[in-house]
Parts: sequence; C-alpha cells; structure tokens
Amino acid sequence: MKLKKGLNKLKSIFGSRFITDEDILVSYINDESSIKSEVSPIGVIQPLTTEEVSSIAKICYKYDIPYIIRGAGTGKSGGAVPTKRSIIVSLTRMDKLRIIKEDMIAYAQPGVIVFNLQKEAEKYGLFYPVDPASLDISTIGGNIAENSGGPRAFKYGVTRDYILGLDVVLPDGTITRLGGITRKNVTGYSLKDLIISSEGTLATITGAYIKLLPYPKYRILLWAMFQNIEKSLSAINKIYTSGITPSAIEFIENKALKAVEALKKERIPNSDYPMHLLIEVDGTVIEHVEEDARFIYKIIEKDCEEILIAPFSSIQKNIWEIRRIISEATKHISFNKLSEDITLPPSKLPLFFKDLRQIEIDNGINIICYGHIGDGNIHVNILNTKDETGIIWEGTKDKILKTIFEKAIEYNGVLSGEHGIGLTKKKYFIKYEPKINIELHKKIKKIFDPKNLLNPDKIW
Amino acid sequence: MKLKKGLNKLKSIFGSRFITDEDILVSYINDESSIKSEVSPIGVIQPLTTEEVSSIAKICYKYDIPYIIRGAGTGKSGGAVPTKRSIIVSLTRMDKLRIIKEDMIAYAQPGVIVFNLQKEAEKYGLFYPVDPASLDISTIGGNIAENSGGPRAFKYGVTRDYILGLDVVLPDGTITRLGGITRKNVTGYSLKDLIISSEGTLATITGAYIKLLPYPKYRILLWAMFQNIEKSLSAINKIYTSGITPSAIEFIENKALKAVEALKKERIPNSDYPMHLLIEVDGTVIEHVEEDARFIYKIIEKDCEEILIAPFSSIQKNIWEIRRIISEATKHISFNKLSEDITLPPSKLPLFFKDLRQIEIDNGINIICYGHIGDGNIHVNILNTKDETGIIWEGTKDKILKTIFEKAIEYNGVLSGEHGIGLTKKKYFIKYEPKINIELHKKIKKIFDPKNLLNPDKIW
Repeated sequence: MKLKKGLNKLKSIFGSRFITDEDILVSYINDESSIKSEVSPIGVIQPLTTEEVSSIAKICYKYDIPYIIRGAGTGKSGGAVPTKRSIIVSLTRMDKLRIIKEDMIAYAQPGVIVFNLQKEAEKYGLFYPVDPASLDISTIGGNIAENSGGPRAFKYGVTRDYILGLDVVLPDGTITRLGGITRKNVTGYSLKDLIISSEGTLATITGAYIKLLPYPKYRILLWAMFQNIEKSLSAINKIYTSGITPSAIEFIENKALKAVEALKKERIPNSDYPMHLLIEVDGTVIEHVEEDARFIYKIIEKDCEEILIAPFSSIQKNIWEIRRIISEATKHISFNKLSEDITLPPSKLPLFFKDLRQIEIDNGINIICYGHIGDGNIHVNILNTKDETGIIWEGTKDKILKTIFEKAIEYNGVLSGEHGIGLTKKKYFIKYEPKINIELHKKIKKIFDPKNLLNPDKIW
Repeated sequence: MKLKKGLNKLKSIFGSRFITDEDILVSYINDESSIKSEVSPIGVIQPLTTEEVSSIAKICYKYDIPYIIRGAGTGKSGGAVPTKRSIIVSLTRMDKLRIIKEDMIAYAQPGVIVFNLQKEAEKYGLFYPVDPASLDISTIGGNIAENSGGPRAFKYGVTRDYILGLDVVLPDGTITRLGGITRKNVTGYSLKDLIISSEGTLATITGAYIKLLPYPKYRILLWAMFQNIEKSLSAINKIYTSGITPSAIEFIENKALKAVEALKKERIPNSDYPMHLLIEVDGTVIEHVEEDARFIYKIIEKDCEEILIAPFSSIQKNIWEIRRIISEATKHISFNKLSEDITLPPSKLPLFFKDLRQIEIDNGINIICYGHIGDGNIHVNILNTKDETGIIWEGTKDKILKTIFEKAIEYNGVLSGEHGIGLTKKKYFIKYEPKINIELHKKIKKIFDPKNLLNPDKIW
C-alpha cells in the first residue's frame, strides 16, 4: 500500500521517464560480475538534475522504497545488482561537463563517460589520467563509487586522488556539498572520501569537482619478455629505484596471450615467453621520453629475453588492445569464470603465483593472471576449462576462491584493488576485515541511511 | 573521585613516565597558533607501544578522562591545545621507522620526524615528497592528523595521498588497522581517510603505512620577478598547460621579502619587484631537468621582469631558507599576528588580493601574503604593525578575519588548505559549512568517541 503510494507519486512526477516496461528493465538487472540476479527492478528513472534526484530520494525515504544508483553497469562485483525489488536510478543522462582551464579542474555530472572527460580535458591541454579498462563506456559517477584505477595508477594514482569535492543527495533528499573545488582543503573530516568507494550505499553523487594535470603529449611503450616472474620482478625493482616513474607497469602471463590468440585467430609474436611486461613512459618533451625509455631498456635488459620498443601511438594502441581484450578472451576459452583483482605487496607476488599454480593442479582448473603489477594489483581469472557440465566447478569454486583470498590475506594483501566488494566478495570481506571495522561500517551507514534504502545488502 | 582513581591507575602503570611536574607541563599547553591557553594539562604520558596507548585509552574511557594526542606541537590552529583539564598523550617517543624497499613503502610510528622519514627513504633511492615548512621537527602522526601539505604538493600532493593504512587505537582502547599496506585497496569505506585530517578527534594513530616514490635526484629553482599579481598568474597559467609539472610554484609578495631583510639585516637582491615566484623543477636525468627549466624560462619570460636561475643545491637552500623564515620575520615586524592559510581557485586570486589591500586600508593593518600559489593556497599573515597597545587590534581582529573568510567563501575557497580548523577557525567553520555536514561530523564523532574524551571541543 505504502509502496504503491510512493510509486504513484514517482509516476506523477516523472511520467514516461519512470520506466516499468519489463523488456527494458531486464537490462538493468546485472552488471559485469559473475552474479546473475533474477530480481527484476520495480522501475527505472533517469533523472536530469540534482533536484530531481532529491525528489526521488525524498519519495523513497517517505515511502520506504529501496533504490540503486546505476551508471553504465560495468562494475565487476555486483555493486549495482538488485537483491530485492528496488527502483533503479540511472544517472547516465546527467552528463554535463565543464573544464575550467584557469583553475585546472573539471566539473562533471555523474553520467559523464570517463573517455569523454579525458578528451574534453585534452582540448585544453589538460589531463585526467585514471584509465580503467572500461573507460570508453563507464561513467565518472561509477568510477567514484568504486574508486576505479587502471594501468596508469602506478604513476598517477586512482580516482580518489583526483576528486576535490562532490555534490551529493543524502538518502533523506538533502542536497549538500562535501569537499570543494580547491586543490587543498583541510576543513574537518573528509566526508567526500567516505563517499568515494562506498559503492553507492551512502549518498547519490550528482556532481564532481575533479583535479586535472598538464597533458603529457608523448608516450613510449616497452614490451619486455621474461623467462619467469622472478626475473620480471627483479626488473621492476630496478625501475622502482631508478628515479624514473613509468606511467604504467603491466604484466601478462603467456597463457593470457594464448587466450587472445585463440579469440583473434592471430599469432602474437613472442607469445611463448612465460612472462611479459608492458612498461610505458610519458612526458611533454619527446627527447626526454625517448631517453627515459632508453634508460629503462638498459637497466632491465639483462633480466629479460627480448624487448620490443613501440614509439608510435598506432602500435601502442594495438598492444594496449591486446591487453584490454584479455578479460573477454578468457571468457571464450572457458565454461565458467571468476574474475578477481587481488592486490599484494609486490614482493609477495612470486609466492602468490606459486600458490596459484598449486591451486590449479589441486582443482583441475586454469588460472590466468595479468594486470597492474607495478601496484601489486593482479587480475586473477579463475577458469573452468575442462568441466563442461559445470557440476564439479559449482561444487568447488567457493573453496578455490576462499583458498586464494586466504593466501592474499596471509601476504598482507587485500581482496580488491579496483572492483570493490559489492556482492561477490561480501562474505569474504566480513570474514577477513576486523569485526570492529565492520561495526564502524554499519554505524556509518546508519548515520547516512537510517532506513537502509540506498543500495541495500552490499559490501557487508 | 572517579578522576583520581583513573589517575592512580595511570600512575601505577606508567610510574615516572606519567609526568605531572608543572615546570614540564607548561611546554605542553600551546602550539604554534595564536591561541594562548591557560589550561594546564593534568599530566603528560609518553607511551612507547600501541599496547601502552591502548591501556591509556582504556583507563581514560573507564574513568572519563579527556586526553589530547600530541606530536611536536607545531600545529597552527590550536589542534593540540587543551580547553579543559586533560591528559596529554605525547607520541614523540614512538619513533620506529622501517623502509621496505621492495614494496616501495615505509612503516612509521607516529613520532617519526618527517625529515627523518625523507632522509631514510633517500638512502634506498626512495622519496617521501610531502614537505611542510615544519618538517625538521614535525612528526608524521601530526602531519596525518592535519593532512599536511607544503610547496611540493603542487606536483606530489599532500599527506593523504601517501597514507595506505593506519594502525589506530579507538577511544575505548580497541586496536585495529584501517586500510592496509598495498598501493591499491577498494575494500569498503575508506575509514583511514576519515582519520586523516580528523585532528586527533577520532582515534590515536600508532602506526602508518606510507607509499614512497622513486627519488628525483636533480632540482633547478627559478626565481621570477613580476610587476604585479596578474602577470604572475598569467605566467602560472602558461605553466599549467605547458605539460611540465613543476615540483613547486610558490609566491612571495615583496612586503614579505622586506620583513626578511629587516630580520636578517641583509639586502635581498631585487626585493623591490612587487611579486616573486619560486618555480622548482625536479627529475632523475639532469639534462631533462635543465631542459624543463629552460622551457619554463622561455614561456614565462615575457610576463616577468627578471629571472634568476639556481641550478646548485647550495643556492637553492639559501632561497628556500628565505621562504621558510617569512613567518618568523613577520612576527618580528608586528605587535600581533594572525596566520591564516586560505585556499582559493587560482583564477580568483587577483580579486582576493585586491580585497586584502582594501581591508588593510580600512583597518590600518598590514597583510603579508606568500605561499603555495600553484595550489591556490595562500598564507595570509594579518599584522598589527601600528597599534602598540593592541587595544584597537583586539577590538577589530575578529571583524577583519570574518571579512577575509567571507571573501574566501564567496570565491569558492576554503578556510584552510593545510593548518586545519582546530580552535582558531572553529566558529568560522561552523558558520560556513552546511549545517547538515556539521551534523554528520557530530554523528561520526559519536560513533568513534561516544564519551567525547578525545581532543574535545575541536573543529566544531
């Protein structure tokens, strides 16, 4: 009854923009995670302004209607997947963007696609460096909610490092600003940092003030091939203390390259070497970038078998394309897949890789790794490539995941470096996070969202 | 009675390390702010371990004893100044430090002096870039509590950007870790970011895991002199979009140089030019640093009157020394002084400086500005240089401060970029921060510190 009243209220305000057509709703159920929800949303609303978001919040608050804020749905942990009948508040149409060149900042509404933010900044000689693999489609709002990273985080950091302030709507409909538009700000508790990575459970982001950097015009990519992980880590250690900070240090196991070869039906040169590093340097003066590349070449050449230098952006694009489709490629060679993003202290990686090889043998599965090795952030793709029926897989996958997470925790690592907890890692988060920290989460949630309406059942 | 019981308990544990000698206590009353408290602490304890901090917290919690965590006492907003009879928990003796080279991180206890952290990291070819003016004496714990910045924040960011995780003791004595030791981490709410800049009001930091960078070996400093602020801002704008990111962009008004001349009884060359910029570039390859310096020279030379190039560290040291003693020098030329650190969007600086000149005329005072102009972070030194009795000053200083803060807020700026709110800016924070944000502060405080024992009466 109460629910129905609330829905009528929403309908009266948003009319045909309150979508309840089941054919449309179906595309708002899942995200890019392995979770397959069957809970259909009550409806989808695409607000256009902060005031509209506030009016939705107020009605939901009054009539106890749960709602989930959604961007492009590229999340990998089920953060936008409904667990109960909810309204989906899709923010993709709130996509205003303004670059304020003289202050080196951008104002973006949550629906702005990250790639568009980058392109627009570039027009002014400015740079937004955060580059999650999904950047062509994912929105800045979603990136903030999950604190997205990407290859360039090694030099440039993650989303959190660029968010100066947030306009938010609290669950009771109150509009406020957390943080501000200045590059420094020490005025009270950093409430905006509480919203960043809160996975849409505390408030709705309706605007972001974003720090930009000068744009580095030139890039050179080195593709280095190694006999084993130890040698590649020795090379990375030399880079760490060389004084040069590459814009990216990525790694790819050869099994990942084989998966891409299978998908593209093309041979990748030198894909047989067990371990590959992509090392990118960037800068404003081409000669400096060249010298940096040469310098890195020299300090790592003894550790590796071959190094390919890609000074041209067209070739770089092809190489990054290989890196970006690995996730897709691993899907094609497997019946089932779990996609994790463990982060470890880099020195623990050799031990962790040994453990993964053992887990493969013990469970008859295939684990393919790649990712942001410079940050210790590893995309661990756990694949069922043998058991076509999926019966054994279903019975063992939880145990496998548990073993992997336990190793990560043992090595002082964390469950996720980029994807967040959402639904997929919830039970492990509860298990490994100190009890008192979970309690603090619950109490903070209660302050912001006393009726537990905003993206319920996530994180813990 | 209850208090006495608690104090006896503390004495029985800490013996002579629980200092109650009034001659010693007197040096724990004030900090570097203009606040002059007369509330003597109950006593000072210098714990050596996290467990000792926890035992202090437990006793204070049980017997309702307020306490204030203190580092080196270099704070500029009264954050460590007691407002009521309290225990001072001085963390300067918890100063263990370990560099973990292979993971490019440091572990530091709160009492580690920031300069020592930098020197130790440098031995391993690593770099902790945050450099508040007080770095020779201030502690990392205090830097975290206030989220300290410094000149190099323009390129390298502030303390928050380097803190991966914190060991903390909650007010009830519970020991926990927030965040971790990895460079990426998206697992739940960022509770460690809530502790950073909380000014010692939520928890006691007993250890920090700190991200380090490769060490940039070479630095060149340009000292550029301008006819006015507008021309210097035009130069800064060209630097912003040149693609080169200087490690520092500082400015000094000539009145500040005159104050230094008066203190040092030495003439500073070219101190007559109204506006001065210090622009530092750094890097690993000396030729690149030289070219960056030359490039910046070229793009700004038309805007400025003269440029002095300091390629040698000895000369750079002398120049930075001038910059660092300005605060001290302004004390010497005035009867009273208020030291603020407004942060604005850089484009608003010309307007703000015009306002300050008007405020000087209207109130018969002297305002000297300098600081981190690249970040829009201005140290505004408000000086009484005329009214020897201080009677007029006492009657007008609040009004002056209010006028300045109002302008800052009008221009979308903030009250503090580095010093924090503490006691000195408390009433202005309450005035300008949205009511709902203050309520959120209070509720968060209550979660962590339900008995309001930890550094009471601060921020709001």
